[in-house]
Amino acid sequence: MERHFDEQLRELKEQLLRMAALAEESIATAVSGLKDRNEEETRAVFEIEEQVNQLDIEIDRRCFELLALKQPMAVDLRFIVSSDRIGSELERIADQAVNIAQRALDLLKHPPLKPLMDLPRMAGLAQGMVRDALTAFVNRDEALARDVCRRDDEVDALNDQIFRELLTYMMQDAKNIERAVDLILVGRHLERIADNATNIAEDVIYLVKGKTIKHHYETRDFSESET
Amino acid sequence: MERHFDEQLRELKEQLLRMAALAEESIATAVSGLKDRNEEETRAVFEIEEQVNQLDIEIDRRCFELLALKQPMAVDLRFIVSSDRIGSELERIADQAVNIAQRALDLLKHPPLKPLMDLPRMAGLAQGMVRDALTAFVNRDEALARDVCRRDDEVDALNDQIFRELLTYMMQDAKNIERAVDLILVGRHLERIADNATNIAEDVIYLVKGKTIKHHYETRDFSESET
Repeated sequence: MERHFDEQLRELKEQLLRMAALAEESIATAVSGLKDRNEEETRAVFEIEEQVNQLDIEIDRRCFELLALKQPMAVDLRFIVSSDRIGSELERIADQAVNIAQRALDLLKHPPLKPLMDLPRMAGLAQGMVRDALTAFVNRDEALARDVCRRDDEVDALNDQIFRELLTYMMQDAKNIERAVDLILVGRHLERIADNATNIAEDVIYLVKGKTIKHHYETRDFSESET
Repeated sequence: MERHFDEQLRELKEQLLRMAALAEESIATAVSGLKDRNEEETRAVFEIEEQVNQLDIEIDRRCFELLALKQPMAVDLRFIVSSDRIGSELERIADQAVNIAQRALDLLKHPPLKPLMDLPRMAGLAQGMVRDALTAFVNRDEALARDVCRRDDEVDALNDQIFRELLTYMMQDAKNIERAVDLILVGRHLERIADNATNIAEDVIYLVKGKTIKHHYETRDFSESET
């Protein structure tokens, strides 16, 4: 029975890693579809999201079963609760990638406003945050998780810079407005993906330390629940 | 012991209702601060969010304790898991209200672009969705929860209309651009609040029916986990 439980926890971890790989792929595909003006590639994001949604439901079910059928002790319980939350964040990331793909399909109907450099760079940063948050989860690496949280500021700064540049395009010529607004929204979606990755990193710290750093209330301690 | 457990579940429900009332208040305050151009009111949103964050942490802790110390049976387990998720959604709603307040503070530095009618209407719809989602939760009212899910389309349609109108303002005069972009973002944040309320309604259906309607996979059934 004990063995079977460990087996199930391992499978849960593998499902999360598969889901994270798909979430990363959805970001990369959405942004390179936009950059390379490739409609077919852009549409592939919708299929990736289907797979992510399917995994999300499977992970929900597995977490619930593990909670219902076993009586997990503190550290396993934290692992299951964290897994459930991480699954939700990954699902939201794939949702944001779909939002980006929808903006991209709009943008592909018109000539490009400008060559895209900073948005793909921002996408690369966000992808790196997702990847490292999951690596931190698998290795229970608190230092790496904290590094992910820090990198969120970099993404926010880059987004502000992109936003300001696009404003100047709109001011210059009213014909730029619709495309610039679409690109601003792409930036917003990437910023939110970085937020989701940060939430995952916070869940990892909760998993490792048994305390929450949500909302910067780092002093709060969950350890008293560990019986 | 049994009594004490019921007591704890009741307290959890009350905390969620308090959190929902605060989340609703944060939306109303952010949007009326913007509409009435009242900086003090707008800033009050930040204090409300502090309270919401505090409750979020308390609810997390309580759910974890209930899972760790008791061995809840199927229906209670679903209640605890749903409560944890609903708490997260309410926290995100207050976050969106903070985003709206930040846009509002920007907008208050400039003369108004236009009298605001549709955004407050949209805020009213979103608030109603949050309120009804929580009522559905308390009364385990599946029909009301489904009604909340349906109303999400109304909010999306109104947001599209607002977006299009603001585009015309930007086209007319480059001086309108910055303010119009801020208002477009306010619309986006309200749209996301309606999404969060829809997620809560989906959690209520999961609670009542024991099956997920996430991602429209309504056929999947969790009941086999109910031992």
